[in-house]
Amino acid sequence: MAGDLALLAAVSLLSAFQQGRFARLVGKSRMKHKVMPPAITGPPEFERTFRAQQNCAEFYPIFQTVLWIAGCFCNQELASLMGLLYMYARHKYFHGYAQSASGRLTGFYLSLVALACLTVLAAAGIVSSLMDEYLGFNIGKKLHKLF
Amino acid sequence: MAGDLALLAAVSLLSAFQQGRFARLVGKSRMKHKVMPPAITGPPEFERTFRAQQNCAEFYPIFQTVLWIAGCFCNQELASLMGLLYMYARHKYFHGYAQSASGRLTGFYLSLVALACLTVLAAAGIVSSLMDEYLGFNIGKKLHKLF
Amino acid sequence: MAGDLALLAAVSLLSAFQQGRFARLVGKSRMKHKVMPPAITGPPEFERTFRAQQNCAEFYPIFQTVLWIAGCFCNQELASLMGLLYMYARHKYFHGYAQSASGRLTGFYLSLVALACLTVLAAAGIVSSLMDEYLGFNIGKKLHKLF
Repeated sequence: MAGDLALLAAVSLLSAFQQGRFARLVGKSRMKHKVMPPAITGPPEFERTFRAQQNCAEFYPIFQTVLWIAGCFCNQELASLMGLLYMYARHKYFHGYAQSASGRLTGFYLSLVALACLTVLAAAGIVSSLMDEYLGFNIGKKLHKLF
Repeated sequence: MAGDLALLAAVSLLSAFQQGRFARLVGKSRMKHKVMPPAITGPPEFERTFRAQQNCAEFYPIFQTVLWIAGCFCNQELASLMGLLYMYARHKYFHGYAQSASGRLTGFYLSLVALACLTVLAAAGIVSSLMDEYLGFNIGKKLHKLF
Repeated sequence: MAGDLALLAAVSLLSAFQQGRFARLVGKSRMKHKVMPPAITGPPEFERTFRAQQNCAEFYPIFQTVLWIAGCFCNQELASLMGLLYMYARHKYFHGYAQSASGRLTGFYLSLVALACLTVLAAAGIVSSLMDEYLGFNIGKKLHKLF
Protein backbone atom coordinates (compact mmCIF):
# COMPACT_ATOMS: atom_id res chain seq x y z
CA MET A 1 0.00 0.00 0.00
CA ALA A 2 2.94 2.26 0.65
CA GLY A 3 5.15 0.68 -2.00
CA ASP A 4 6.04 3.95 -3.71
CA LEU A 5 7.71 5.21 -0.52
CA ALA A 6 9.91 2.13 -0.02
CA LEU A 7 13.17 3.99 -0.59
CA LEU A 8 12.33 6.57 2.08
CA ALA A 9 11.24 3.83 4.46
CA ALA A 10 14.52 1.99 3.88
CA VAL A 11 16.57 5.06 4.87
CA SER A 12 14.27 5.69 7.84
CA LEU A 13 14.66 2.10 9.04
CA LEU A 14 18.44 2.22 8.64
CA SER A 15 18.56 5.43 10.68
CA ALA A 16 16.46 3.81 13.44
CA PHE A 17 18.96 0.97 13.43
CA GLN A 18 21.82 3.48 13.75
CA GLN A 19 20.13 5.08 16.77
CA GLY A 20 19.83 1.66 18.37
CA ARG A 21 23.51 1.05 17.70
CA PHE A 22 24.48 4.35 19.40
CA ALA A 23 22.47 3.29 22.46
CA ARG A 24 24.29 -0.06 22.49
CA LEU A 25 27.69 1.68 22.29
CA VAL A 26 26.76 3.74 25.36
CA GLY A 27 25.92 0.47 27.12
CA LYS A 28 29.34 -0.91 26.14
CA SER A 29 31.02 2.28 27.38
CA ARG A 30 29.17 1.83 30.70
CA MET A 31 30.66 -1.67 31.02
CA LYS A 32 34.16 -0.55 30.05
CA HIS A 33 34.21 2.35 32.52
CA LYS A 34 32.10 0.60 35.17
CA VAL A 35 29.43 3.34 35.22
CA MET A 36 26.35 1.50 36.46
CA PRO A 37 22.82 2.83 35.74
CA PRO A 38 21.27 5.15 36.76
CA ALA A 39 24.61 7.05 37.01
CA ILE A 40 25.37 9.29 34.04
CA THR A 41 28.63 10.76 35.28
CA GLY A 42 32.02 9.12 35.09
CA PRO A 43 35.30 9.30 33.18
CA PRO A 44 35.37 11.97 30.42
CA GLU A 45 35.33 9.33 27.66
CA PHE A 46 32.09 7.86 29.00
CA GLU A 47 30.51 11.29 29.42
CA ARG A 48 31.38 12.26 25.85
CA THR A 49 29.96 9.01 24.48
CA PHE A 50 26.81 9.48 26.53
CA ARG A 51 26.33 13.10 25.40
CA ALA A 52 26.98 12.13 21.78
CA GLN A 53 24.15 9.60 21.91
CA GLN A 54 21.87 12.07 23.75
CA ASN A 55 22.43 14.69 21.08
CA CYS A 56 21.74 12.18 18.29
CA ALA A 57 18.54 11.11 20.06
CA GLU A 58 17.38 14.74 20.46
CA PHE A 59 17.88 15.47 16.78
CA TYR A 60 16.41 12.19 15.58
CA PRO A 61 12.72 13.23 15.55
CA ILE A 62 13.66 16.48 13.77
CA PHE A 63 15.52 14.46 11.15
CA GLN A 64 12.64 12.03 10.66
CA THR A 65 10.15 14.87 10.27
CA VAL A 66 12.08 16.72 7.55
CA LEU A 67 13.12 13.47 5.85
CA TRP A 68 9.53 12.23 5.40
CA ILE A 69 8.07 15.62 4.48
CA ALA A 70 10.86 16.25 1.94
CA GLY A 71 10.39 12.76 0.50
CA CYS A 72 6.58 12.83 0.35
CA PHE A 73 6.08 16.44 -0.78
CA CYS A 74 9.13 17.04 -2.94
CA ASN A 75 11.42 14.26 -4.19
CA GLN A 76 11.87 10.83 -2.65
CA GLU A 77 15.24 10.03 -4.23
CA LEU A 78 16.86 13.36 -3.24
CA ALA A 79 15.44 13.12 0.28
CA SER A 80 16.74 9.57 0.67
CA LEU A 81 20.18 10.67 -0.48
CA MET A 82 20.23 13.55 2.01
CA GLY A 83 19.04 11.07 4.65
CA LEU A 84 22.07 8.88 3.96
CA LEU A 85 24.31 11.95 4.18
CA TYR A 86 22.77 12.79 7.56
CA MET A 87 23.43 9.25 8.79
CA TYR A 88 27.04 9.44 7.63
CA ALA A 89 27.42 12.82 9.40
CA ARG A 90 25.97 11.40 12.62
CA HIS A 91 28.33 8.44 12.37
CA LYS A 92 31.30 10.82 12.13
CA TYR A 93 29.86 12.98 14.93
CA PHE A 94 29.34 10.09 17.35
CA HIS A 95 32.73 8.47 16.89
CA GLY A 96 34.52 11.83 16.73
CA TYR A 97 32.86 13.01 19.96
CA ALA A 98 33.69 9.72 21.73
CA GLN A 99 37.39 10.44 21.02
CA SER A 100 37.50 14.14 21.90
CA ALA A 101 35.12 17.06 22.44
CA SER A 102 36.43 18.89 19.38
CA GLY A 103 36.13 15.72 17.29
CA ARG A 104 32.37 16.18 17.23
CA LEU A 105 32.44 19.38 15.15
CA THR A 106 32.98 18.14 11.56
CA GLY A 107 30.20 15.57 11.82
CA PHE A 108 27.89 18.02 13.55
CA TYR A 109 28.23 20.74 10.92
CA LEU A 110 27.81 18.17 8.14
CA SER A 111 24.62 16.93 9.81
CA LEU A 112 23.33 20.52 9.88
CA VAL A 113 24.01 20.82 6.13
CA ALA A 114 21.99 17.65 5.48
CA LEU A 115 19.16 18.92 7.72
CA ALA A 116 19.17 22.30 5.95
CA CYS A 117 18.94 20.62 2.51
CA LEU A 118 16.04 18.43 3.71
CA THR A 119 14.30 21.49 5.20
CA VAL A 120 14.59 23.39 1.90
CA LEU A 121 13.20 20.39 -0.02
CA ALA A 122 10.37 19.99 2.49
CA ALA A 123 9.47 23.70 2.47
CA ALA A 124 9.52 23.84 -1.33
CA GLY A 125 7.26 20.79 -1.52
CA ILE A 126 4.79 22.18 1.00
CA VAL A 127 4.61 25.62 -0.60
CA SER A 128 4.03 24.03 -4.01
CA SER A 129 1.31 21.77 -2.54
CA LEU A 130 -0.43 24.64 -0.74
CA MET A 131 -0.36 26.84 -3.86
CA ASP A 132 -1.79 24.00 -5.92
CA GLU A 133 -4.53 23.25 -3.41
CA TYR A 134 -5.62 26.72 -2.32
CA LEU A 135 -4.71 28.88 -5.34
CA GLY A 136 -5.01 26.29 -8.10
CA PHE A 137 -1.48 27.18 -9.20
CA ASN A 138 0.45 24.05 -10.20
CA ILE A 139 4.19 24.83 -10.31
CA GLY A 140 5.07 21.42 -11.73
CA LYS A 141 2.79 21.93 -14.75
CA LYS A 142 3.99 25.52 -15.33
CA LEU A 143 7.64 24.39 -15.33
CA HIS A 144 6.71 21.55 -17.66
CA LYS A 145 5.14 23.97 -20.14
CA LEU A 146 8.22 26.20 -20.13
CA PHE A 147 10.54 23.48 -21.41
CA MET B 1 0.90 12.56 -3.65
CA ALA B 2 0.46 13.87 -0.14
CA GLY B 3 -0.93 17.22 -1.24
CA ASP B 4 -4.06 17.05 0.86
CA LEU B 5 -1.97 16.96 4.04
CA ALA B 6 0.11 20.04 3.20
CA LEU B 7 -1.28 22.12 6.07
CA LEU B 8 -0.37 19.47 8.62
CA ALA B 9 3.06 19.07 7.06
CA ALA B 10 3.60 22.84 7.26
CA VAL B 11 2.88 22.89 11.01
CA SER B 12 5.03 19.80 11.50
CA LEU B 13 7.94 21.38 9.64
CA LEU B 14 7.62 24.63 11.60
CA SER B 15 7.69 22.69 14.85
CA ALA B 16 10.85 20.84 13.72
CA PHE B 17 12.37 24.23 13.03
CA GLN B 18 11.38 25.39 16.53
CA GLN B 19 13.10 22.35 18.06
CA GLY B 20 16.23 23.18 16.11
CA ARG B 21 16.06 26.74 17.38
CA PHE B 22 15.81 25.58 21.00
CA ALA B 23 18.93 23.45 20.48
CA ARG B 24 20.73 26.49 19.05
CA LEU B 25 19.75 28.61 22.05
CA VAL B 26 21.26 26.00 24.36
CA GLY B 27 24.45 26.25 22.29
CA LYS B 28 24.41 30.04 22.72
CA SER B 29 23.84 29.65 26.47
CA ARG B 30 26.88 27.31 26.58
CA MET B 31 29.00 30.06 24.98
CA LYS B 32 27.65 32.78 27.26
CA HIS B 33 28.25 30.81 30.45
CA LYS B 34 31.38 29.01 29.18
CA VAL B 35 29.93 25.52 29.75
CA MET B 36 31.87 23.38 27.30
CA PRO B 37 30.50 20.04 26.03
CA PRO B 38 30.13 17.38 27.32
CA ALA B 39 29.42 19.26 30.62
CA ILE B 40 25.73 19.75 31.36
CA THR B 41 26.07 21.47 34.72
CA GLY B 42 26.86 25.12 35.28
CA PRO B 43 25.21 28.37 36.35
CA PRO B 44 21.47 28.05 37.16
CA GLU B 45 20.49 30.01 34.02
CA PHE B 46 22.33 27.54 31.78
CA GLU B 47 20.87 24.54 33.60
CA ARG B 48 17.33 25.91 33.24
CA THR B 49 17.82 26.59 29.51
CA PHE B 50 19.25 23.10 29.05
CA ARG B 51 16.42 21.42 30.94
CA ALA B 52 13.84 23.47 29.02
CA GLN B 53 15.22 22.18 25.72
CA GLN B 54 15.44 18.62 27.06
CA ASN B 55 11.80 18.68 28.12
CA CYS B 56 10.73 20.06 24.74
CA ALA B 57 12.73 17.32 22.99
CA GLU B 58 11.15 14.60 25.17
CA PHE B 59 7.63 15.77 24.39
CA TYR B 60 8.27 16.37 20.70
CA PRO B 61 7.64 12.81 19.44
CA ILE B 62 4.45 12.66 21.55
CA PHE B 63 3.30 15.90 19.96
CA GLN B 64 4.09 14.73 16.42
CA THR B 65 2.23 11.46 16.99
CA VAL B 66 -1.01 13.06 18.20
CA LEU B 67 -0.75 15.91 15.66
CA TRP B 68 -0.56 13.58 12.65
CA ILE B 69 -3.14 11.09 13.92
CA ALA B 70 -5.57 13.90 14.78
CA GLY B 71 -5.01 15.51 11.38
CA CYS B 72 -5.24 12.31 9.33
CA PHE B 73 -8.08 10.60 11.17
CA CYS B 74 -10.18 13.54 12.32
CA ASN B 75 -9.73 17.08 11.00
CA GLN B 76 -6.63 18.55 9.42
CA GLU B 77 -7.50 22.23 9.99
CA LEU B 78 -8.37 21.78 13.67
CA ALA B 79 -5.27 19.66 14.27
CA SER B 80 -3.04 22.24 12.57
CA LEU B 81 -4.53 24.98 14.73
CA MET B 82 -3.90 22.99 17.91
CA GLY B 83 -0.40 22.32 16.61
CA LEU B 84 0.23 26.07 16.36
CA LEU B 85 -1.15 26.51 19.89
CA TYR B 86 1.27 23.84 21.10
CA MET B 87 4.17 25.62 19.43
CA TYR B 88 3.17 28.92 21.03
CA ALA B 89 2.93 27.19 24.42
CA ARG B 90 6.39 25.66 24.00
CA HIS B 91 7.78 29.05 23.02
CA LYS B 92 6.39 30.54 26.25
CA TYR B 93 7.62 27.54 28.22
CA PHE B 94 11.16 27.68 26.90
CA HIS B 95 11.70 31.39 27.37
CA GLY B 96 9.83 31.44 30.70
CA TYR B 97 11.94 28.55 32.02
CA ALA B 98 15.19 30.23 30.86
CA GLN B 99 14.28 33.21 33.07
CA SER B 100 13.09 31.39 36.19
CA ALA B 101 12.00 27.90 37.25
CA SER B 102 8.46 29.07 37.97
CA GLY B 103 8.32 30.87 34.62
CA ARG B 104 7.94 27.52 32.89
CA LEU B 105 4.51 26.75 34.37
CA THR B 106 2.12 28.84 32.19
CA GLY B 107 3.61 27.57 28.95
CA PHE B 108 3.76 24.01 30.22
CA TYR B 109 0.11 23.87 31.25
CA LEU B 110 -0.93 25.48 27.97
CA SER B 111 1.07 22.85 26.06
CA LEU B 112 -0.77 20.14 28.00
CA VAL B 113 -4.11 21.69 26.98
CA ALA B 114 -3.05 21.60 23.31
CA LEU B 115 -1.87 17.98 23.66
CA ALA B 116 -5.14 17.01 25.37
CA CYS B 117 -7.20 18.57 22.54
CA LEU B 118 -5.09 16.77 19.91
CA THR B 119 -5.46 13.49 21.83
CA VAL B 120 -9.26 13.86 21.95
CA LEU B 121 -9.38 14.59 18.20
CA ALA B 122 -7.07 11.65 17.47
CA ALA B 123 -9.03 9.23 19.67
CA ALA B 124 -12.35 10.34 18.15
CA GLY B 125 -10.98 9.85 14.64
CA ILE B 126 -9.60 6.40 15.41
CA VAL B 127 -12.78 5.17 17.13
CA SER B 128 -14.86 6.39 14.20
CA SER B 129 -12.48 4.68 11.72
CA LEU B 130 -12.48 1.40 13.64
CA MET B 131 -16.30 1.38 13.92
CA ASP B 132 -16.59 2.05 10.21
CA GLU B 133 -14.11 -0.67 9.28
CA TYR B 134 -15.00 -3.46 11.68
CA LEU B 135 -18.69 -2.78 12.44
CA GLY B 136 -19.70 -1.04 9.22
CA PHE B 137 -21.03 1.86 11.28
CA ASN B 138 -20.22 5.21 9.63
CA ILE B 139 -20.65 8.04 12.13
CA GLY B 140 -20.08 10.72 9.51
CA LYS B 141 -22.96 9.45 7.37
CA LYS B 142 -25.29 9.03 10.36
CA LEU B 143 -24.64 12.61 11.49
CA HIS B 144 -25.17 13.77 7.93
CA LYS B 145 -28.57 12.07 7.78
CA LEU B 146 -29.69 13.67 11.04
CA PHE B 147 -29.32 17.23 9.74
CA MET C 1 -8.67 8.86 4.40
CA ALA C 2 -6.36 6.82 6.58
CA GLY C 3 -9.08 4.45 7.77
CA ASP C 4 -7.24 1.29 6.85
CA LEU C 5 -4.43 2.14 9.27
CA ALA C 6 -6.71 2.75 12.27
CA LEU C 7 -5.38 -0.20 14.26
CA LEU C 8 -1.78 1.02 13.92
CA ALA C 9 -2.84 4.55 14.83
CA ALA C 10 -4.62 3.24 17.92
CA VAL C 11 -1.47 1.50 19.18
CA SER C 12 0.61 4.57 18.32
CA LEU C 13 -1.76 6.86 20.24
CA LEU C 14 -1.79 4.53 23.25
CA SER C 15 2.01 4.51 23.27
CA ALA C 16 2.08 8.33 23.15
CA PHE C 17 -0.25 8.30 26.14
CA GLN C 18 2.09 5.91 27.95
CA GLN C 19 5.03 8.26 27.33
CA GLY C 20 3.00 11.12 28.78
CA ARG C 21 2.21 8.99 31.83
CA PHE C 22 5.92 8.22 32.40
CA ALA C 23 6.65 11.97 32.31
CA ARG C 24 3.87 12.55 34.88
CA LEU C 25 5.29 9.86 37.16
CA VAL C 26 8.67 11.63 37.08
CA GLY C 27 6.84 14.81 38.10
CA LYS C 28 5.22 12.94 41.01
CA SER C 29 8.60 11.53 42.03
CA ARG C 30 9.96 15.11 42.01
CA MET C 31 7.21 16.14 44.46
CA LYS C 32 7.73 13.10 46.69
CA HIS C 33 11.49 13.54 46.94
CA LYS C 34 11.40 17.37 46.81
CA VAL C 35 13.67 17.56 43.74
CA MET C 36 12.74 20.89 42.19
CA PRO C 37 13.40 21.62 38.47
CA PRO C 38 15.87 22.10 36.92
CA ALA C 39 17.67 19.70 39.30
CA ILE C 40 17.97 16.13 38.01
CA THR C 41 19.95 14.67 40.86
CA GLY C 42 18.53 13.52 44.18
CA PRO C 43 17.72 10.34 46.11
CA PRO C 44 18.49 7.09 44.19
CA GLU C 45 14.77 6.30 43.75
CA PHE C 46 14.19 9.62 41.99
CA GLU C 47 17.28 9.22 39.81
CA ARG C 48 16.19 5.73 38.74
CA THR C 49 12.68 6.94 37.89
CA PHE C 50 14.13 9.86 35.93
CA ARG C 51 16.57 7.67 33.99
CA ALA C 52 13.81 5.14 33.27
CA GLN C 53 11.70 7.87 31.65
CA GLN C 54 14.70 9.26 29.76
CA ASN C 55 15.51 5.85 28.31
CA CYS C 56 11.87 5.33 27.28
CA ALA C 57 11.84 8.76 25.62
CA GLU C 58 15.09 8.03 23.72
CA PHE C 59 13.74 4.77 22.34
CA TYR C 60 10.29 6.14 21.55
CA PRO C 61 11.09 7.57 18.07
CA ILE C 62 12.90 4.33 17.16
CA PHE C 63 9.82 2.38 18.22
CA GLN C 64 7.43 4.61 16.26
CA THR C 65 9.57 4.34 13.14
CA VAL C 66 9.71 0.54 13.05
CA LEU C 67 6.06 0.23 14.17
CA TRP C 68 4.71 2.33 11.29
CA ILE C 69 7.04 0.91 8.65
CA ALA C 70 6.27 -2.68 9.74
CA GLY C 71 2.53 -1.91 9.75
CA CYS C 72 2.44 -0.06 6.43
CA PHE C 73 4.86 -2.23 4.46
CA CYS C 74 4.25 -5.66 5.94
CA ASN C 75 1.29 -6.50 8.18
CA GLN C 76 -0.76 -4.09 10.23
CA GLU C 77 -2.21 -6.63 12.67
CA LEU C 78 1.16 -8.26 13.48
CA ALA C 79 2.84 -4.86 13.86
CA SER C 80 0.07 -3.65 16.20
CA LEU C 81 0.45 -6.78 18.31
CA MET C 82 4.23 -6.29 18.56
CA GLY C 83 3.52 -2.65 19.42
CA LEU C 84 1.37 -3.74 22.35
CA LEU C 85 4.11 -6.15 23.45
CA TYR C 86 6.61 -3.26 23.34
CA MET C 87 4.31 -1.10 25.48
CA TYR C 88 3.91 -3.93 28.01
CA ALA C 89 7.71 -4.37 28.09
CA ARG C 90 8.24 -0.63 28.67
CA HIS C 91 5.64 -0.70 31.46
CA LYS C 92 7.58 -3.50 33.18
CA TYR C 93 10.88 -1.70 32.52
CA PHE C 94 9.74 1.63 33.96
CA HIS C 95 8.21 0.26 37.14
CA GLY C 96 10.98 -2.31 37.60
CA TYR C 97 13.67 0.36 37.23
CA ALA C 98 11.86 2.69 39.67
CA GLN C 99 12.16 -0.07 42.30
CA SER C 100 15.76 -1.16 41.67
CA ALA C 101 18.46 -0.84 39.02
CA SER C 102 18.38 -4.57 38.28
CA GLY C 103 14.58 -4.49 38.07
CA ARG C 104 14.87 -2.80 34.69
CA LEU C 105 16.46 -5.76 32.91
CA THR C 106 13.47 -8.08 32.20
CA GLY C 107 11.40 -5.29 30.69
CA PHE C 108 14.34 -3.94 28.75
CA TYR C 109 15.23 -7.26 27.10
CA LEU C 110 11.56 -7.88 26.30
CA SER C 111 11.35 -4.46 24.66
CA LEU C 112 14.39 -5.36 22.52
CA VAL C 113 12.62 -8.56 21.41
CA ALA C 114 9.57 -6.54 20.35
CA LEU C 115 11.78 -4.02 18.51
CA ALA C 116 13.68 -6.84 16.77
CA CYS C 117 10.42 -8.44 15.58
CA LEU C 118 9.16 -5.07 14.28
CA THR C 119 12.49 -4.47 12.53
CA VAL C 120 12.32 -7.87 10.81
CA LEU C 121 8.73 -7.19 9.66
CA ALA C 122 9.70 -3.71 8.46
CA ALA C 123 12.79 -4.92 6.59
CA ALA C 124 10.86 -7.77 4.95
CA GLY C 125 8.15 -5.36 3.84
CA ILE C 126 10.62 -2.86 2.40
CA VAL C 127 12.67 -5.50 0.54
CA SER C 128 9.49 -6.94 -0.96
CA SER C 129 8.31 -3.42 -1.98
CA LEU C 130 11.66 -2.51 -3.54
CA MET C 131 11.83 -5.79 -5.47
CA ASP C 132 8.31 -5.26 -6.73
CA GLU C 133 8.99 -1.66 -7.77
CA TYR C 134 12.48 -1.86 -9.24
CA LEU C 135 12.69 -5.49 -10.41
CA GLY C 136 9.03 -6.18 -11.09
CA PHE C 137 9.24 -9.22 -8.82
CA ASN C 138 6.11 -9.56 -6.68
CA ILE C 139 6.76 -11.96 -3.76
CA GLY C 140 3.13 -11.91 -2.61
CA LYS C 141 1.89 -13.13 -6.00
CA LYS C 142 4.64 -15.77 -6.30
CA LEU C 143 3.76 -17.18 -2.87
CA HIS C 144 0.10 -17.13 -3.84
CA LYS C 145 0.77 -19.19 -6.96
CA LEU C 146 2.72 -21.80 -5.01
CA PHE C 147 -0.24 -22.74 -2.80
